[in-house]
Amino acid sequence: MNILAFAGSLRSGSLNKALLRNAKEAAPEGMEIEIFDLEGIPLFNADLEKEGVPERVNEFKEAIRRSDGILIASPEYNHGMSGVTKNAVDWASRPPKNPVMMGKPAAIVGASPGITGTARSQEQLRQTLKGLDVRCMASPEFLLYRAKEKLDDEGVLTDDSTRDFLKTFMKEFADWVSIFLNHKD
Amino acid sequence: MNILAFAGSLRSGSLNKALLRNAKEAAPEGMEIEIFDLEGIPLFNADLEKEGVPERVNEFKEAIRRSDGILIASPEYNHGMSGVTKNAVDWASRPPKNPVMMGKPAAIVGASPGITGTARSQEQLRQTLKGLDVRCMASPEFLLYRAKEKLDDEGVLTDDSTRDFLKTFMKEFADWVSIFLNHKD
Amino acid sequence: MNILAFAGSLRSGSLNKALLRNAKEAAPEGMEIEIFDLEGIPLFNADLEKEGVPERVNEFKEAIRRSDGILIASPEYNHGMSGVTKNAVDWASRPPKNPVMMGKPAAIVGASPGITGTARSQEQLRQTLKGLDVRCMASPEFLLYRAKEKLDDEGVLTDDSTRDFLKTFMKEFADWVSIFLNHKD
Amino acid sequence: MNILAFAGSLRSGSLNKALLRNAKEAAPEGMEIEIFDLEGIPLFNADLEKEGVPERVNEFKEAIRRSDGILIASPEYNHGMSGVTKNAVDWASRPPKNPVMMGKPAAIVGASPGITGTARSQEQLRQTLKGLDVRCMASPEFLLYRAKEKLDDEGVLTDDSTRDFLKTFMKEFADWVSIFLNHKD
Repeated sequence: MNILAFAGSLRSGSLNKALLRNAKEAAPEGMEIEIFDLEGIPLFNADLEKEGVPERVNEFKEAIRRSDGILIASPEYNHGMSGVTKNAVDWASRPPKNPVMMGKPAAIVGASPGITGTARSQEQLRQTLKGLDVRCMASPEFLLYRAKEKLDDEGVLTDDSTRDFLKTFMKEFADWVSIFLNHKD
Repeated sequence: MNILAFAGSLRSGSLNKALLRNAKEAAPEGMEIEIFDLEGIPLFNADLEKEGVPERVNEFKEAIRRSDGILIASPEYNHGMSGVTKNAVDWASRPPKNPVMMGKPAAIVGASPGITGTARSQEQLRQTLKGLDVRCMASPEFLLYRAKEKLDDEGVLTDDSTRDFLKTFMKEFADWVSIFLNHKD
Repeated sequence: MNILAFAGSLRSGSLNKALLRNAKEAAPEGMEIEIFDLEGIPLFNADLEKEGVPERVNEFKEAIRRSDGILIASPEYNHGMSGVTKNAVDWASRPPKNPVMMGKPAAIVGASPGITGTARSQEQLRQTLKGLDVRCMASPEFLLYRAKEKLDDEGVLTDDSTRDFLKTFMKEFADWVSIFLNHKD
Repeated sequence: MNILAFAGSLRSGSLNKALLRNAKEAAPEGMEIEIFDLEGIPLFNADLEKEGVPERVNEFKEAIRRSDGILIASPEYNHGMSGVTKNAVDWASRPPKNPVMMGKPAAIVGASPGITGTARSQEQLRQTLKGLDVRCMASPEFLLYRAKEKLDDEGVLTDDSTRDFLKTFMKEFADWVSIFLNHKD
């Protein structure tokens, strides 16, 4: 089972990038996670697309296409998704061929310094993914609030109960992806 | 009364850019509308910001700061805001000093080829603007559905009832901005 | 395959009740649809619940429990779900035992006299169902806008392309439910 | 300045009813808060309305009409507004005459036992109030998370920093209402 993961932040010290690294560690056996860095993906512009899809965008789309499922770490800026997250999804939604995300199972996680833990960002992202026929796992949700207190300087989750829950979450996600893998067989 | 307007699309033939030009025409006397093109504003990256805020971003923030109100034409991509719209707001939300949008009155419009007329995009954007203490006009709403049938090849609104409603909308927006202008006096 | 369906309106002439009757007609072979009328379900009150769950609520919960999937016709009042819809879901979410909706596949439809076709109502309902681990079909969506022009006086869909699309939608819903039925086997 | 307040819960020991009582205490001089109990307001039904608007609904609508602003304590059930909250707003939105909420300034607060503090409920309610041209204060927000740790057995806020913030919030709300009161003069 191959999962394509990305974080909607470009900052090297991003909490959400760190969260993805922890999710990769917490994944159950048999689940491989490739983390794709959104650096180099430009702002979507249909005129630019007509001249030729940027190379980095093609790499992103192909990485999604060959995956069995998608994991997104969605930061919350200004009570919503980051522009970086939405822009990546906007590119991924484009033809030619069927949109690469269509029909894929997915899960969303998010980390924030504050207390709402990216709840609003995740809601906006779910709404958008639904528009692409992405099958987001409904429950459980993973909201890492007060993330700075739970990650050490290297971005490693040091809070035991959160680490345990992340393992449970990733196991549930593997089960969710399996439903659709088996269905295809 | 000076309004700063922008459309969340980079495409030159954008329906939402066309809608802004029509809104400028439809504005009541005394309301000046400056249309700012988001071309040149990069994806938000806090590392990049630390090295120095890009010049075009500074121009955008200053244009907002000196305005009395904000008008946004918000396209709908994948059942939500465009990444371009959100990315511009993410930059505008950043310090130093108070965020430039804080406390400003605003209105949202949107055009789409389909039938929901950017309703979902506008909801997401409202949620985000609220997070910045922007005072969005609640009602009326302006949703230009089936926009291609209502704009000619030059992007001019040819549908009479829509043009009349756009005038009413802009008049209401002027009244909304006035409330806060008078309040400051 | 047994589907429990309800409309979030109490009015006898409700567009959404009519839509459900049409959906029942449009269902593919092998899908049985039971339409449950929400009349008699009181407003949720935890004090009332403690005294004893109302009989009609128990009937509703049992009808959901024995179903293989859920179909909801969600009217839009004031840019959101109706109170009637949400209240029914609030009751269904209550213990004892696991919430009866948990893990069920579901689909949402909606009819409105206006042009946005219950888009906003459906988004709010999806958000809530996700909170109950209900697996809502992502795509396609069924938004019956200008419903009064497409239903006759008996509430029968007379618009051919809409009827065809409703059949397609119900077929897709049956496929969605099948994924989870097969998974249980 | 007269404010009409209500909580979207019928339970006598409701956290949100308790929060409203604290808000009343925290209100600045000159702001009178009438708390209206939603008990007795039936589920909305247009057939019932045609036979005659229920007495308790008329009382509710009149209480809103004579107020200068609205304060709503919005519990979160299943990642959204309560059915009780939405149902009350659905009744208030009905003719005859202009909807009684139209143009009123408003503020939303909410209390929850968990950590997201009714963020999602408040977003749904804002979306609905906007549909009625209610002018919700954008910022600050008041989200009482882990409410049971911050209220004593009588429902009195014992957490000092939360009490201080509630006072600030109510002061900001008074300023918001004043903008529209002065504007009318």
